[in-house]
Amino acid sequence: MHLTNEQLDTFEREGWLFLPEVFNRQEAKGLRADARQVFALDRVEVVREKDQKTARTAFAAHTYNDGFRRVGRHPRLINPVMQALGGPVYMHQYKVNAKAAFNGDVWQWHQDYGTWARDDLMPEPRAMNIALFLDDVTEFNGALLFIPRSHQAGVIEAGHDVSTTSYPLWTIDNRTIARLVEEGGLVSPKGPGGSVVLFHSNLVHASPSNMSPFDRTIVYLSLCHVDNRIRQFKRPEWIAHRDFTPIVPLADDCLRTRQAEDSQP
Amino acid sequence: MHLTNEQLDTFEREGWLFLPEVFNRQEAKGLRADARQVFALDRVEVVREKDQKTARTAFAAHTYNDGFRRVGRHPRLINPVMQALGGPVYMHQYKVNAKAAFNGDVWQWHQDYGTWARDDLMPEPRAMNIALFLDDVTEFNGALLFIPRSHQAGVIEAGHDVSTTSYPLWTIDNRTIARLVEEGGLVSPKGPGGSVVLFHSNLVHASPSNMSPFDRTIVYLSLCHVDNRIRQFKRPEWIAHRDFTPIVPLADDCLRTRQAEDSQP
Repeated sequence: MHLTNEQLDTFEREGWLFLPEVFNRQEAKGLRADARQVFALDRVEVVREKDQKTARTAFAAHTYNDGFRRVGRHPRLINPVMQALGGPVYMHQYKVNAKAAFNGDVWQWHQDYGTWARDDLMPEPRAMNIALFLDDVTEFNGALLFIPRSHQAGVIEAGHDVSTTSYPLWTIDNRTIARLVEEGGLVSPKGPGGSVVLFHSNLVHASPSNMSPFDRTIVYLSLCHVDNRIRQFKRPEWIAHRDFTPIVPLADDCLRTRQAEDSQP
Repeated sequence: MHLTNEQLDTFEREGWLFLPEVFNRQEAKGLRADARQVFALDRVEVVREKDQKTARTAFAAHTYNDGFRRVGRHPRLINPVMQALGGPVYMHQYKVNAKAAFNGDVWQWHQDYGTWARDDLMPEPRAMNIALFLDDVTEFNGALLFIPRSHQAGVIEAGHDVSTTSYPLWTIDNRTIARLVEEGGLVSPKGPGGSVVLFHSNLVHASPSNMSPFDRTIVYLSLCHVDNRIRQFKRPEWIAHRDFTPIVPLADDCLRTRQAEDSQP
């Protein structure tokens, strides 16, 4: 798993990169079982939707679930980001977003670095997301929406929306979104479970609600260059981590060996 | 505009039929201007979203707007439905659904005939919708979701949802939707403004919210066979009409001649 120069150029220009089927069906299936376990936990890290029942997102799942611990150090996710950011990275944020069948609510238009800068005083956008689809992502179950090249606008003014969903978010106004879409268009990466998408921390993105009977679970690793660690610890540790240790990737078969271990008597 | 036997068979089996670009760009553009005027009116027929500002749907627009009056008697919409229903039709309901950019809210999973039977005592599902896209419908702006062949299930049990959106609706439970989708799948007809979609009054459908900067205005004619008129007048006349006169289609160029008339000094 190594990005080509062409892929790195595309990422720089467009702000995102889709990598289909980086993980196989068996790996994705095992992690879906982990996600079900995690969403059923009564923990502060597991944020519910407005119905106070459906899981919306499970923060820091790599700290209390073995499958997600391995994903958080998986070479197929860590290596491309180290390449794109040019050096060692630590885990700034980790979440498993449920976007559950029927009840998964929207994520409004926002930039991630906007929040990391405002709330956590992260010095620069030398951090990014890499997302792993656990379910097939289709036009029906709340696929991500990206505005290509919007990362080139830097940090955009935002307002703190505390009412639309159960989770407060710094969101961007409609007029700005309309202008950015006029310039860059809209894309919506879709593909089978096991696919991966990288996106720049200043890329403006959103996702609609999920009315379909199909879950749309995605794991997000938000990785930050170790020289760019956050300066303010306002948010809980399980939302904005304070362990700045460089991540050392595990072996490529780390999810398979675990399944082998698990199946032993 | 005449449906082939193959198209009629498809409609019978699948419960829906997509007809791309039945109206041309000029006709669609003129009607978008009409829609803007209608949505700006302070009338009881114009229902707002939960924000009490954005137009959600304009009922009975054919009774107070000349463009929509012509659409309500347009041969390209009336003739196919007369074919499918096997006889003359009257206008049971007429609405222009806005699904406005950024603010257009969901329509939950439902069958139209379920409401017409329960609220209006329409004897049989000898009525159907024909929808005209005024804007391009894409994967981004809240396209309709159909469950193919779900019309074959007849009238499905439903609950009256008065809280999800600003408009009360008889909606179908998640377990039933999951089963119907397992059997029939999901489709989402998309296409340029001017395209038309017919669907059976028992076809289960929904539409997600619109987060994009693109409006998604659609005109819905709900046409009923004249022998199948409603028996109960519980809902306002502008929601469930009581004029059972058979519709006589206008000329095919009725929208063009109007534009010509309008442009005269």
